[in-house]
Amino acid sequence: MATATYTSMRNVCMVFRIDINCDMGESFGAYVIGCDNEVIKHITSANIACGFHAGDPVVMRRTVRLVKANNVAGGAHPGFPDLLGFGRRDMNLTREEARNYMTYQVGALRALCDSEGIQLQHVKPHGALYNMAAEDPDLAGAIIESVKDFHQEPILLVLANSEMQKIAEEAGLKVAREAFADRAYNPNGTLVSRRVPGAVLRNVNQISDRVIKMAKESKAFSVDGKTVELGRVESICVHGDNPEAVNIASAIKTALVKEGVQVRPMGEFL
Amino acid sequence: MATATYTSMRNVCMVFRIDINCDMGESFGAYVIGCDNEVIKHITSANIACGFHAGDPVVMRRTVRLVKANNVAGGAHPGFPDLLGFGRRDMNLTREEARNYMTYQVGALRALCDSEGIQLQHVKPHGALYNMAAEDPDLAGAIIESVKDFHQEPILLVLANSEMQKIAEEAGLKVAREAFADRAYNPNGTLVSRRVPGAVLRNVNQISDRVIKMAKESKAFSVDGKTVELGRVESICVHGDNPEAVNIASAIKTALVKEGVQVRPMGEFL
Amino acid sequence: MATATYTSMRNVCMVFRIDINCDMGESFGAYVIGCDNEVIKHITSANIACGFHAGDPVVMRRTVRLVKANNVAGGAHPGFPDLLGFGRRDMNLTREEARNYMTYQVGALRALCDSEGIQLQHVKPHGALYNMAAEDPDLAGAIIESVKDFHQEPILLVLANSEMQKIAEEAGLKVAREAFADRAYNPNGTLVSRRVPGAVLRNVNQISDRVIKMAKESKAFSVDGKTVELGRVESICVHGDNPEAVNIASAIKTALVKEGVQVRPMGEFL
Amino acid sequence: MATATYTSMRNVCMVFRIDINCDMGESFGAYVIGCDNEVIKHITSANIACGFHAGDPVVMRRTVRLVKANNVAGGAHPGFPDLLGFGRRDMNLTREEARNYMTYQVGALRALCDSEGIQLQHVKPHGALYNMAAEDPDLAGAIIESVKDFHQEPILLVLANSEMQKIAEEAGLKVAREAFADRAYNPNGTLVSRRVPGAVLRNVNQISDRVIKMAKESKAFSVDGKTVELGRVESICVHGDNPEAVNIASAIKTALVKEGVQVRPMGEFL
Repeated sequence: MATATYTSMRNVCMVFRIDINCDMGESFGAYVIGCDNEVIKHITSANIACGFHAGDPVVMRRTVRLVKANNVAGGAHPGFPDLLGFGRRDMNLTREEARNYMTYQVGALRALCDSEGIQLQHVKPHGALYNMAAEDPDLAGAIIESVKDFHQEPILLVLANSEMQKIAEEAGLKVAREAFADRAYNPNGTLVSRRVPGAVLRNVNQISDRVIKMAKESKAFSVDGKTVELGRVESICVHGDNPEAVNIASAIKTALVKEGVQVRPMGEFL
Repeated sequence: MATATYTSMRNVCMVFRIDINCDMGESFGAYVIGCDNEVIKHITSANIACGFHAGDPVVMRRTVRLVKANNVAGGAHPGFPDLLGFGRRDMNLTREEARNYMTYQVGALRALCDSEGIQLQHVKPHGALYNMAAEDPDLAGAIIESVKDFHQEPILLVLANSEMQKIAEEAGLKVAREAFADRAYNPNGTLVSRRVPGAVLRNVNQISDRVIKMAKESKAFSVDGKTVELGRVESICVHGDNPEAVNIASAIKTALVKEGVQVRPMGEFL
Repeated sequence: MATATYTSMRNVCMVFRIDINCDMGESFGAYVIGCDNEVIKHITSANIACGFHAGDPVVMRRTVRLVKANNVAGGAHPGFPDLLGFGRRDMNLTREEARNYMTYQVGALRALCDSEGIQLQHVKPHGALYNMAAEDPDLAGAIIESVKDFHQEPILLVLANSEMQKIAEEAGLKVAREAFADRAYNPNGTLVSRRVPGAVLRNVNQISDRVIKMAKESKAFSVDGKTVELGRVESICVHGDNPEAVNIASAIKTALVKEGVQVRPMGEFL
Repeated sequence: MATATYTSMRNVCMVFRIDINCDMGESFGAYVIGCDNEVIKHITSANIACGFHAGDPVVMRRTVRLVKANNVAGGAHPGFPDLLGFGRRDMNLTREEARNYMTYQVGALRALCDSEGIQLQHVKPHGALYNMAAEDPDLAGAIIESVKDFHQEPILLVLANSEMQKIAEEAGLKVAREAFADRAYNPNGTLVSRRVPGAVLRNVNQISDRVIKMAKESKAFSVDGKTVELGRVESICVHGDNPEAVNIASAIKTALVKEGVQVRPMGEFL
């Protein structure tokens, strides 16, 4: 398999590359959320909200400019049409609805990127749309159709080891597989539900250690203390919604660089 | 002046060309408005609602497909973020808000056009946004900035004889000037307010006669019975929101063709 | 059991009473849906949309006035916050969200009823909220809490034979059980999914016959041709979203009256 | 005139009473705005957002509970249907729209107040609705109609010295006149536009001095240093959207109490 060979070659060369992605531009009108101006310094790819679950056209342009000014790559972060629920509540859309809601949002952001002279690097669905699609082939199919709606196809950021990943790869999309820096994994490689105590890690050193394992060994630690094979991971997802999260993002980047891992936008090595 | 020369040349050649535009795709979710499937047969350019004042992503794609299947040109019809008021209520946006709301909506539609393999021909602001911008240089400026946000600039459809027209021409935009088939004009060339009795014409023959005068002589009749110089007009706006309106659209096209006027999408002769 | 005794007594007296309910006021801004002015003549209780899935404050007041002018009883028809999906898409709200979304909407309508001098007779959740609550005890609990938020408790309209009915009765609410005039039933008394061919009946005579059976014998016909015990039914749900539906509503009322069934608002006999 | 007599009597008794009001409950879904838990300690009346410009049903109930737990009076703070603009952008609604948007929002909040066992003390329109109505008799009329929609009429909080005040008093409403603690006044008693430098005061001592003058002498200082007669003022508006604003609110209350002014909810002395 091409990927395996590629991985082996990379191990031989001892060149490790990883992207760090974070949700951004989730403010809305008078409402401010996230520490975008801080977290931008510690990431390589920004997932920019597109107005359905968060963000608005003014915030979107400002975020595109912020991304550009910091030499970070920008991607679209489309969500369910549920501002009230921040896109975190399951909704049962038809495939036609899901595809078009995606294309609408991504197209809106792409126009702002075009206008500011940056390229749309990737697409990462948000919240419940992301979680549902990770397991629902129909919704995954809608997302794939939407990515293909764009002639210059953006990279699709997917949960490493998920159904979504397999379906997207089979469909021939350019895919980046992501792992979560601060989330506990089940033994089968899925994420432990946020409702379970211990699902979200807080210890900076522990998180940094895990991220290095993800980047260099493609492994995560499961809640039962064993390691889980994630397969190759091209991006690490961090959070930036509070000062503590910004510190974690900063620590992760520092640790990766110290370990010799090249931290670069996914579009540069995919 | 270039335009005058061009007009003279055209008079010499006796070739008259005109576009007929109509608002479309204004349905929303379960709500249906307009007779799109009928009116599409009698027009050459469709102004497709973009989800703020009307329309939704699913309706937008269906409308793009309808436009393509009928060999009609498609344009964006962005409006104020006021679905409840159908974009017909004045809102005092900042210039930054207006520009970005426009670019967001036009970008979303352009993505759907790209995906379906048609070109985005033009942009026509909707309702209160259109009316306010016709007189407000700041809002007109925002609209112009938004059109320039697109590398392949769409044509901007403007009210013939308005401030908006002048400002857009000075800014170097490709502009199409439109006249209204079924609206009474004031002696100064502006539209009579809808609230005034007689502002909206209903007689098919009368409307057809006026449209021919607009297309061939660049003139409108004012409410006081005199003629008003509109300057060159490249497009006639018709309505399609009820069966009667569809009949009017049909009659206008038939009358124009009978008079030897070429009825074609504005993008083909601008 | 009180209900059984009551039913027996009624059989002895040979007095049959039934309410006919229909969704109304689902227009929104410039969007018109439903034939409210026609269907109002053939029903006794109107479920008035409250602005989340459909309806707006202006439409709501007009509908309250229409209800009053036609001596029909009015109730609240709250739905999910999903205008784009007309409240027909499942959403996984928390109990706290569901309760408060309900109370907000019902409170808004009650204020308009107060202002127009009519009483709020009942509450009937809409679409996906109704369907999900029929089976989900947690969501049913949220709805019950919301009804109890009102000192003068409105009647809760529930699907006859559902979990929702049991939970609401156990909670001590005043409940009206409804059956659907034009929907096929499964042998276990649930509704056949709309996606199954034959789920929605169209034959006026067939529908009228069924409704009489529902009103006088508390029975429905299942898709396999057998009868299904629904238990006592106090209201029949009809639709009014197209001219054919209005004819069905009219035929149902005429048939019931002809059979000697008293057709009256549920609040008059509950 | 009754009011004058009452004022004289109060001067004789040397009893000064004033209410302190502040906007609250303006968070929305995942978005948090305002320091409600802190500012609540320093005010006597809370203007609770009602879901159109800010707030949502869950936030509204939490705010009603917060108000109750702190023995503060609660009122409705309805705004334009413009979450994206936080209700601060002018919209030209019809009178029918304005009245019903108000009644809808106030009714929704009243239901939550009823449910939590507190009374709806007052209504204060928000942002652009408040500012436009202060000068527009038609919009003021819509607001008055809406207040009268409620049998137990809430107090209407109005800008002291405005057209709105006069119209509301003539209509027989119970009115509370408010002055702004931290805003500069024009010589004619209107507020200096926020766009003018110096329009918003920041010095705690200066603000406290002004408030005492407002409470005891019904006077404000104009930007030209002279005093402006405001007429009787029953409530002082403070802000609570940042820690500094909370400090100002705290200082005002302390200063008023120290001066012997009774700081109590307007409903207790109106």
